[in-house]
Amino acid sequence: MSDSATIHLSRQAKVFDQILATRPDTPILDTIDSPAVLKTLSVDELVQLADELRAYLLYSTGVSGGHFGANLGVVELTIALHTVLNTPQDLLVWDVGHQAYAHKVLTGRRERLPSIRAKDGLTAFPERHESEYDTFGVGHSSTSISAALGMSLAARLLGEERKVAAVIGDGAMTGGMAFEAMNDAVQQNADLLVVLNDNDMSISAAIGGFSRHLAKLWQRGLAMDIDKNGNILMVKRDISADDRRIRHYLQMANGAFENVSNRLPSKIGEKISELLHGVPLSPLPDKIAEKIGDKLFADNLFKAIGFTYLGPFDGHDLPKLISVLERAKQLQGAVLVHVHTVKGKGFLPAEADPIGYHAIGKLPKTTDKQPATDSPARPAAKKYSQIFGEWLLHTAKHDKALVAITPAMAEGSGMVEYAACYPERFFDVAIAEQHAVTLAAGMATSEKIKPVVAIYSTFLQRGYDQLIHDVALQNLDVTFAIDRAGLVGEDGATHAGVFDLTYLRCVPNIIIATPSDEHECHQLLNSCYRHRGVAAVRYPRGEGVGCSVGLDDEHYPIGKANIVWQSFDESDNVANNQPKLAVLAFGTRLADALKAAKRLYQTQHIACVVVDMRWVKPLDKALISDLLAQGVTHIATIEEHQIAGGAGSAVNEFIITTALMQQPKIINLGIADEFIHHASHAEQLAYCGLDEAGIYHALSQFVGR
Amino acid sequence: MSDSATIHLSRQAKVFDQILATRPDTPILDTIDSPAVLKTLSVDELVQLADELRAYLLYSTGVSGGHFGANLGVVELTIALHTVLNTPQDLLVWDVGHQAYAHKVLTGRRERLPSIRAKDGLTAFPERHESEYDTFGVGHSSTSISAALGMSLAARLLGEERKVAAVIGDGAMTGGMAFEAMNDAVQQNADLLVVLNDNDMSISAAIGGFSRHLAKLWQRGLAMDIDKNGNILMVKRDISADDRRIRHYLQMANGAFENVSNRLPSKIGEKISELLHGVPLSPLPDKIAEKIGDKLFADNLFKAIGFTYLGPFDGHDLPKLISVLERAKQLQGAVLVHVHTVKGKGFLPAEADPIGYHAIGKLPKTTDKQPATDSPARPAAKKYSQIFGEWLLHTAKHDKALVAITPAMAEGSGMVEYAACYPERFFDVAIAEQHAVTLAAGMATSEKIKPVVAIYSTFLQRGYDQLIHDVALQNLDVTFAIDRAGLVGEDGATHAGVFDLTYLRCVPNIIIATPSDEHECHQLLNSCYRHRGVAAVRYPRGEGVGCSVGLDDEHYPIGKANIVWQSFDESDNVANNQPKLAVLAFGTRLADALKAAKRLYQTQHIACVVVDMRWVKPLDKALISDLLAQGVTHIATIEEHQIAGGAGSAVNEFIITTALMQQPKIINLGIADEFIHHASHAEQLAYCGLDEAGIYHALSQFVGR
Repeated sequence: MSDSATIHLSRQAKVFDQILATRPDTPILDTIDSPAVLKTLSVDELVQLADELRAYLLYSTGVSGGHFGANLGVVELTIALHTVLNTPQDLLVWDVGHQAYAHKVLTGRRERLPSIRAKDGLTAFPERHESEYDTFGVGHSSTSISAALGMSLAARLLGEERKVAAVIGDGAMTGGMAFEAMNDAVQQNADLLVVLNDNDMSISAAIGGFSRHLAKLWQRGLAMDIDKNGNILMVKRDISADDRRIRHYLQMANGAFENVSNRLPSKIGEKISELLHGVPLSPLPDKIAEKIGDKLFADNLFKAIGFTYLGPFDGHDLPKLISVLERAKQLQGAVLVHVHTVKGKGFLPAEADPIGYHAIGKLPKTTDKQPATDSPARPAAKKYSQIFGEWLLHTAKHDKALVAITPAMAEGSGMVEYAACYPERFFDVAIAEQHAVTLAAGMATSEKIKPVVAIYSTFLQRGYDQLIHDVALQNLDVTFAIDRAGLVGEDGATHAGVFDLTYLRCVPNIIIATPSDEHECHQLLNSCYRHRGVAAVRYPRGEGVGCSVGLDDEHYPIGKANIVWQSFDESDNVANNQPKLAVLAFGTRLADALKAAKRLYQTQHIACVVVDMRWVKPLDKALISDLLAQGVTHIATIEEHQIAGGAGSAVNEFIITTALMQQPKIINLGIADEFIHHASHAEQLAYCGLDEAGIYHALSQFVGR
Repeated sequence: MSDSATIHLSRQAKVFDQILATRPDTPILDTIDSPAVLKTLSVDELVQLADELRAYLLYSTGVSGGHFGANLGVVELTIALHTVLNTPQDLLVWDVGHQAYAHKVLTGRRERLPSIRAKDGLTAFPERHESEYDTFGVGHSSTSISAALGMSLAARLLGEERKVAAVIGDGAMTGGMAFEAMNDAVQQNADLLVVLNDNDMSISAAIGGFSRHLAKLWQRGLAMDIDKNGNILMVKRDISADDRRIRHYLQMANGAFENVSNRLPSKIGEKISELLHGVPLSPLPDKIAEKIGDKLFADNLFKAIGFTYLGPFDGHDLPKLISVLERAKQLQGAVLVHVHTVKGKGFLPAEADPIGYHAIGKLPKTTDKQPATDSPARPAAKKYSQIFGEWLLHTAKHDKALVAITPAMAEGSGMVEYAACYPERFFDVAIAEQHAVTLAAGMATSEKIKPVVAIYSTFLQRGYDQLIHDVALQNLDVTFAIDRAGLVGEDGATHAGVFDLTYLRCVPNIIIATPSDEHECHQLLNSCYRHRGVAAVRYPRGEGVGCSVGLDDEHYPIGKANIVWQSFDESDNVANNQPKLAVLAFGTRLADALKAAKRLYQTQHIACVVVDMRWVKPLDKALISDLLAQGVTHIATIEEHQIAGGAGSAVNEFIITTALMQQPKIINLGIADEFIHHASHAEQLAYCGLDEAGIYHALSQFVGR
């Protein structure tokens, strides 16, 4: 393609101010059935393609819902990568995958994009089964450099000619395994291209020393340019070019600036002071600009590790991106290209509020019926994350020992209000689950601070060793508030929290609660927090049943279950040889289990008792023994979790060890030995037989055995 | 203490060439019952104390066995830290804890040191229950900065005046969570002192970009000194001071040097070339030395992240260390002091072979009896790690697709010979378990490379999410060779591998083998490696039973168990109402289970069948069904693993789902819900009831039920 006359074309992306309700005209995009077509386009055409692609994403995401800001931010980068690389021969690995929509559109999945996240539709993340262009399934962060390094080393061993590139965000880069992988890439003298997509934030606002470091590099990077031949040059620094951003960075790097500014010649110090106080900028004299750069931005983390570093560059300047990537592709060894993008780029509301527009729900279809006016309006039930957030706020008010830790999930975990009220007791540690858990352990050694780690079930897998080793083994007082436990609907298998009961239950010194509704969630958080030791409360994604939550300090006794309904009382003699069923429900499947049991009683006259178990560990063995003493013949356990090793398994282990004249029959309802792919939560439950109909069917067959 | 006249005293540590068989005279050490005493000593006395402490460690470790090189390397550093800090008010956190012996001696545990690692003796690592000076239990690497940061933040919230210091090795620093913690420390503006104990190696040789980076810093650091007032100064660089080390570093950093040397003035280039070719060094002229420093060593990783960086310093120069640490203690914020130590310092054989002397066994006591000559000399059985190493070597010879990955455990995992024979297919990724697993996944996407990840069970906990998410979910062809599975004797609870069956079994797409002896270990490695998918073979620490291993390519069918002995055959009618026992053994407890079952048959005439289950997943359900069809009334499962969710739990889950006229009684033998502390392996098994006597007792009670 490359037309060197146009290589210096630099223009702004087309700007939109609303999500498109109808499909836009996309004449060039309509011709892109594979990335190979990109190589036949002129730079002008590619630039127009970027506008069309952005418009199409604005339309399609309105149809499907899904990740938003990150996808708009990488439109130019995605086009540039697929233009420069020879995918799928060259391998492109996306980190996390929040930003893969443009990639999907350019790699033959344009027309299917509106199906994203729906059952049988495209997945929200790259997935190997979906396309040969999806080289690595992602969803959890910080894996791309490791995976890409593996691919590069495999290609070297096999003598295959491939370039391997990983695209990783600045947020994902804070995850330790990205650092481990960079270290190893240098050690292996691997041929690897890493594109750092720096947009100043992971999902929450960017934090940490690493982020300040990137800000410094960007500041320095304003002095980098590329000439007609694709050579990277240091050129005259023109700070006026991007006033607002520079001031933002200077403010971010404030402390660091002040540290050194008194060691700088006074003219430079003055200039910095002006910048920080919002004085309009004019281009700095060369020498002063250079001095600032040399003094303040001497240390480059990537160069320190051993990478060849290029950047930073404006990630929305498509012609320049193409030139830079062409150049980087020629370099051998471990190369990092640092590009700067804006989340939500080209869509004004998202640029202004990138956190709010991290992901969006579907737009209502114009053809959608209005809700029937005769159905009484039910106030929306609160989400469990909100229940947690309110519990946190309430508890913090009365207990100064409480601190809360999140690995970059303050919004998702419902902690925004808490963070605003108690900033000194709120710790967002960035995407760093391992560190989050051990940080809590370190705090708990004081015995006067009580840390609460708010974490998604699927991400706690990242801190498993730390939970065993640093928290449980030392029996430290840390409470884990485990969100998104169970199936997670459209977020699919990568984000399902269906292993936690198993991997936690085998660890000594821990207690584990499984609330069945919002009220219990609050109470069990109280119980676990009051407990001086390791405790976990697991609760699901999404809304509760809509029950009210008294914001009080009541709590449930540890290890005590609750009978919610029984069709017989202790004195009832159920006819001999008739089954007597106990349904032991762990967590929010209780409601459907109760309905199923009642139906079984009503339609088949099966004697039933339904128990809200509340605790997986310690298990309420006394209650189970009582039920058996009352002649229960059948026990069904139910949980939204893998069956293997889960809560039902704990019941099995207990029952087989009790010496009984007659062992009851047992069935464990839960998720079978497979990964459950994305669909609505209701569809997933139905697939697993964990909705009311499925439970009724299973119980009915079971008591007939 | 400080006597500024002697502050510049610099001397070499006393040197030993053998481990001391008798307790040395240690007049000063004998007075140190707490670190407070250190503050009353002169620098000269402290220097003598270092010699005495080193001598005492040489004696004591000979008595107890244990970690060696790391402890000798930090004698001066430990004295300096306890002299400068006010422990236990100030908090000192050791990473990994391989190096805490000197710390234990100085903090009131001098006389108990020879009991280290023995049952009821001192633990090998810091442990909170053991001493108020042990602020954080360790054993796994890279946790200290997170824990110390937690302590520092807690102290700030509580308004407590404490300094918190973490000591971390360069090897541990490659673990990603150390990076996560540094990033967060800067973000939190925390007051935190990190001492980087750089000895050029983790347990295997130091590797990776990070290590090269440290080498560069050390090279530059020769120009740093400290004046009488404790100020850090840049002084004239005297490269001749440490000829051998510098050349070593220059060679390590070879590539980096060559990259830039052609951009340097010719004189400097010449000098570097001389250095690399072994020409004896003379002090460089100031200007040239400075140019080298500026050009080559401009980027400092720690400064990039936002730490104040001091160093590097000679970690055996006690007076200077004290001055540096005094100065660092005064600084606010996140401060890193980089010191350079030599593993095994002062003991010549260990200095020459630091990997071989990472840890040592006990010296034979002179009073120990010689082995009785009438007992036939049994050739020592091979260790399981050796069986793995031989399998690896054998398989690699015939299959070029095999690659092996280790997170810094090449020696412990038995991979040294393989690494020497197939260096291009051997990947030591440093202490980076998360990366190791995803690297394997990336390689496996090629579908032409078959990675084997050799990892200790306890360390696989660090890569759990990656195993689920990057390997199993994508069903990639990766084999995990899981060493140190089960109890690990003297290494204690921190290194026990007793959760793996539970946390792996719940993950879809994985097969899990549990060999019962060396021969099976080899065969099951074959079976798992041949399987095109995710597979794990778990085998224990230490020696096997001594059986021979044919180095062949036979393999066992997946999911098929093996009856090793039965007291009845299918046609036998065991008398009604008599128990008929099946013992299902998973792994190396088979031998003792077999003995116990035979004894039960011989003494109590209990009909028994003993099964070597071989596979936890898939379980041999057909065989269990057959046994039940043969009238088995009692099933005992046995595994060296937590009971909760483990192999026995898988048997329970299967049996309760099979519709039987008469459910068998079941017992799960394994480790109860507690952490098992250090003792000999035999003592641990006895404690858990998993030795022959314990199994016999449990089975006997069980069939009597």
